[in-house]
Amino acid sequence: MIPCQIRVIYGDTDRMGVVYYANYLRYFEAGRGEFIRRKGPGYRAIEEGGHQLPVVEAKVRYRAPATYDDLLVVETRVTEVRRASVRFGYRVVKAETGALLCEGETVHACIDRSGRPTALPPELVRLLKEDLAAGSGGPDR
Amino acid sequence: MIPCQIRVIYGDTDRMGVVYYANYLRYFEAGRGEFIRRKGPGYRAIEEGGHQLPVVEAKVRYRAPATYDDLLVVETRVTEVRRASVRFGYRVVKAETGALLCEGETVHACIDRSGRPTALPPELVRLLKEDLAAGSGGPDR
Amino acid sequence: MIPCQIRVIYGDTDRMGVVYYANYLRYFEAGRGEFIRRKGPGYRAIEEGGHQLPVVEAKVRYRAPATYDDLLVVETRVTEVRRASVRFGYRVVKAETGALLCEGETVHACIDRSGRPTALPPELVRLLKEDLAAGSGGPDR
Amino acid sequence: MIPCQIRVIYGDTDRMGVVYYANYLRYFEAGRGEFIRRKGPGYRAIEEGGHQLPVVEAKVRYRAPATYDDLLVVETRVTEVRRASVRFGYRVVKAETGALLCEGETVHACIDRSGRPTALPPELVRLLKEDLAAGSGGPDR
Repeated sequence: MIPCQIRVIYGDTDRMGVVYYANYLRYFEAGRGEFIRRKGPGYRAIEEGGHQLPVVEAKVRYRAPATYDDLLVVETRVTEVRRASVRFGYRVVKAETGALLCEGETVHACIDRSGRPTALPPELVRLLKEDLAAGSGGPDR
Repeated sequence: MIPCQIRVIYGDTDRMGVVYYANYLRYFEAGRGEFIRRKGPGYRAIEEGGHQLPVVEAKVRYRAPATYDDLLVVETRVTEVRRASVRFGYRVVKAETGALLCEGETVHACIDRSGRPTALPPELVRLLKEDLAAGSGGPDR
Repeated sequence: MIPCQIRVIYGDTDRMGVVYYANYLRYFEAGRGEFIRRKGPGYRAIEEGGHQLPVVEAKVRYRAPATYDDLLVVETRVTEVRRASVRFGYRVVKAETGALLCEGETVHACIDRSGRPTALPPELVRLLKEDLAAGSGGPDR
Repeated sequence: MIPCQIRVIYGDTDRMGVVYYANYLRYFEAGRGEFIRRKGPGYRAIEEGGHQLPVVEAKVRYRAPATYDDLLVVETRVTEVRRASVRFGYRVVKAETGALLCEGETVHACIDRSGRPTALPPELVRLLKEDLAAGSGGPDR
């Protein structure tokens, strides 16, 4: 699990005074990007190597609202690695208290430059499976 | 099912050249708002009546990319009405061809001014169930 | 002057209950896109012809707040056409009352595929100057 | 001058592969929020004290594009303090090279709970003027 910090700005909130629901998918992306940057070569390098990982599915469960100026932590982990797809899990917690605000997951296909499904690059599989093996993606989470 | 049109702007796309995944939740909201406006008193009136419908869960399945300047149609329907919650289903299609780009759903709790769960207002239940009865929320969709 | 309608969604507002200030630049883009689509071949066609019009400067003056569910009209006009740049002016008004909410302008350079400044394509100059000649860009606006 | 770091995510970019122009106003807000947090009690505390600082004017000059995964620094300074308004200046630079990507400014009115213009709170004036006196808002910047 790799953490990533987010400071909630005005632009993230809505008239209910809380973070707008779509913005958690932005936070998930920030967490995912940080995960890939710390584990390996970064997502930009993956793209330069000819692979892309477009999202094919996303789920979000909103547990408690985040508000303006909150410092959030996005915890990202790998929950499944298949031949040509990968699943990430996310938890967004309040930095100060650790309170869970939001959970979710995204599934990504691996495609090549022509947009066709292709196997994940072996070095990426290795990095992703390391996180999986470390148990951070276990069922009790 | 109530349709709502969206024109994709530059600001909706990302460096892959397609609509960024979080923005479909914005499109769902536009569709939902249009649905409630056409069916009944509008979401603003619901709020003024002391009720709010925060999202507690969202799911999105990305089928095909939308690109800059595409004219999209968001089709919104009610798929479940419970005592204190409602589920909406969405399909985003390309206006010109009808091609399916994205599907999803959101579940909303009904809360009162103090933030406590409360029953949906009866007149809203009636309107929502009309759509359900019309079959637009059927299982084959 | 070409109008473009925008319905304010929750995702456009912030915790003050009004449209977040950055979103007016999104509305300006929607207005500009609609302008170019109605006047000529559309911005996508300009790009396919090898030209891009990146923003080099933007100004916004916020006059009155827009709120959730407001129907807005973005009025876009050309205010200056130079050899390798164009200036657009915008007014965002409330559809129902015509009340002015926001004014602004953007300046765009014309660049070629390699990113170098280049003259605006002649057919685009002609279209842009038509609007200018029609007086919609006059100083009293 | 107070710095604030921003990591560019996919969701910030557009189909040109660069940060979408409206997002710099989000970055300015992040910089401004960090400035007020470090200098004083934070913007949330100002609001709780009954004052708000809505933006009445914004200007942005785009110098060079920021791209995905760039680490940016937003430098915020106070450039003018008046009885009932304040002006902030911003520079967005690339963290690695210091290259200037974007400059701008925002002007904020001070309003009370009823939305009427009011004098800036004295303790806020003092903090803002400190930054001004430190010369960070000088003309050579």
